[in-house]
Amino acid sequence: MPRSPRVAAAIHALSDGVFSRLAHRIEQLEGEVYPLHVGDTWMDPPVGCRMEDLRSEGLPGLHRYTRPAGHPALIRAASQRWQLSEDRILATAGATGGLSALAGTLLEPGDEVLILAPFWPLIPGIVATRGGRPVEVPFFGRPGSAAERLGPHLTEKTVAIYINSPNNPTGQVLTESELRELVAFARAHDLWIWSDEVYEDYVYVGDFVPLRRLAPERCFTALSFSKAWGMAGNRCGLLLGPEDPALTAEVRKLVVHGFYAASTASQWAATRALQGDGGWIHAARESYRAVGEAAAACLAVAPPASGTFLFVDVSAHLEGSGPDALHGFLLRCLDRNLVLAPGSSCGAIYGDHVRLCFTAAPPDVVMRGVASLALLLGRRGG
Amino acid sequence: MPRSPRVAAAIHALSDGVFSRLAHRIEQLEGEVYPLHVGDTWMDPPVGCRMEDLRSEGLPGLHRYTRPAGHPALIRAASQRWQLSEDRILATAGATGGLSALAGTLLEPGDEVLILAPFWPLIPGIVATRGGRPVEVPFFGRPGSAAERLGPHLTEKTVAIYINSPNNPTGQVLTESELRELVAFARAHDLWIWSDEVYEDYVYVGDFVPLRRLAPERCFTALSFSKAWGMAGNRCGLLLGPEDPALTAEVRKLVVHGFYAASTASQWAATRALQGDGGWIHAARESYRAVGEAAAACLAVAPPASGTFLFVDVSAHLEGSGPDALHGFLLRCLDRNLVLAPGSSCGAIYGDHVRLCFTAAPPDVVMRGVASLALLLGRRGG
Repeated sequence: MPRSPRVAAAIHALSDGVFSRLAHRIEQLEGEVYPLHVGDTWMDPPVGCRMEDLRSEGLPGLHRYTRPAGHPALIRAASQRWQLSEDRILATAGATGGLSALAGTLLEPGDEVLILAPFWPLIPGIVATRGGRPVEVPFFGRPGSAAERLGPHLTEKTVAIYINSPNNPTGQVLTESELRELVAFARAHDLWIWSDEVYEDYVYVGDFVPLRRLAPERCFTALSFSKAWGMAGNRCGLLLGPEDPALTAEVRKLVVHGFYAASTASQWAATRALQGDGGWIHAARESYRAVGEAAAACLAVAPPASGTFLFVDVSAHLEGSGPDALHGFLLRCLDRNLVLAPGSSCGAIYGDHVRLCFTAAPPDVVMRGVASLALLLGRRGG
Repeated sequence: MPRSPRVAAAIHALSDGVFSRLAHRIEQLEGEVYPLHVGDTWMDPPVGCRMEDLRSEGLPGLHRYTRPAGHPALIRAASQRWQLSEDRILATAGATGGLSALAGTLLEPGDEVLILAPFWPLIPGIVATRGGRPVEVPFFGRPGSAAERLGPHLTEKTVAIYINSPNNPTGQVLTESELRELVAFARAHDLWIWSDEVYEDYVYVGDFVPLRRLAPERCFTALSFSKAWGMAGNRCGLLLGPEDPALTAEVRKLVVHGFYAASTASQWAATRALQGDGGWIHAARESYRAVGEAAAACLAVAPPASGTFLFVDVSAHLEGSGPDALHGFLLRCLDRNLVLAPGSSCGAIYGDHVRLCFTAAPPDVVMRGVASLALLLGRRGG
């Protein structure tokens, strides 16, 4: 019989966010703070794409509902930018909204999703809140073929692989040959591919290959204007569907019933970003690359090949073992006003790493935070 | 084993939207169109609450992530407006986002939700996309006590009642005594109450009583700035939790993993609306009431007690029976450039009704559409 005041077991079991143990301490920090735990950018969106640039007069319906699939202007611009027919494109409430809708569309209760680790901290919860079971597969930086790395985790319940390249948190960009191995594995076992490509515009070393080109029949792609255009607060992303547009139409049902549509104004901001000349992204990429390289040099780690993060092994600096050891290290960082994300939020086996976002604050602030971390780690790189 | 390219059975079975059969025809309409099928308002939001009024300079972080629970300024303003502690309030991607998060938090697969009919068209799909089973309970305008009306639909799997008063589509406002009966039923069977109160500011006749006052231990309340403040495109609503704030904290997990947060700019617009003097709502209410009464008089039906809809019995005008009969009637409306929602979208047994939103276009446009409908129905009211 009903079970007020109980909630669904899978939800109750879900962790209440990466920073819940530290939230109280973070709020009390005084002086200059280095909030490098969240993946965000300090840069304002391009001129013309800010809220104040969106005038009711020139944009009829700016505050009204638009089509759940997306505003026609945005879908048209996206169709041109990504060379895809309009019926394979959905505007979503950020990549989060797109991936949640996708998980809700594809997963039956108990279905398993192979998640290449380390990973974006929200993806296991997105699978779990849609009734699925996230299966962590250590992948980036590990030896062996895709089949060797993924095979041991395959079960009768596996239905999809989540691949995030360019990768948050490692910055690694998978090569075409690695991607082809993953596609072959997915085909051999009839798995969907969920390709999270939100950092596609921020590749510093190597070539980025969109997975949908290699697996057009089974690949969904999540994109986000948050990362690409400095508008994370707008909550606007895109989901690109496989060749058969009927699949995109199915995900649209989850958009309608999950958040109805992305914000109309946010979709206009995204449209204008796509219509611009790309100068902002070019400048952002060079700025991110420079601070990423400087931060890496200071910490004596390899420079990031892409993205906005460094994933730093701090095992030599942990006292004891287990979650409390990393928690202790994060507290020592907090003593220096430095907020970092625990590596364990990117995968259970990464409890000896921390994640640092080098674009969450202006470069000078980031570098002071990084210098403080370098001191704590006893490193004098660069 | 995996089942690409199949999608989850419950999703595939879900209808692809109320208007999918008519969409092509609607797009081809020429001349003055009467799009009274969508629940929206033609009025622009108050000055000061429009996107162009949100200046990056005065609002640091306007385009950046805010807290998933909601921007501190909005949560503070909402706490004052609704007299509730801040830890019981979540900002959501419209009421849709709040109810989807709520359903995801509370429902185990197969759990049933009693939905008082006729109802807001999206609610059955919200339950279904979260693995639950929506159970339609003819309620508004039906005789008998709450227990008599709901009892026959109760099973071992029932966990919640969805109540929408002021009601979309009937405009009915449940009395305190009716609400007390519903609460007694929910308590007797230990059911959650999901109270959709998005039309609380648009009551023309009678008194509105918030359900959470009568059932503070088990009532979640969905609110929306879409309806109240003419900002449906902003996708910003609120979810108010029961007395125990731990329950709101559980729903927050679904916010994080469903859309991360409502748009930051939309939350600022909502904050400013709450900080204003309420003059806009007062003017909107009087305008809506006037056009609602005029439309009802023209169609010779009872004036709406609340909200923005008329729910009109057209059974005498259907040719044949079943879904095709109503479809034929809607096509005859389309011949007059009049777009109405099928009553069946508000409940399976309402296939002889149509829903008309009298605020979706300026009053003169609405009244020309209504006059056309009155002619079609052979009515000469007013």
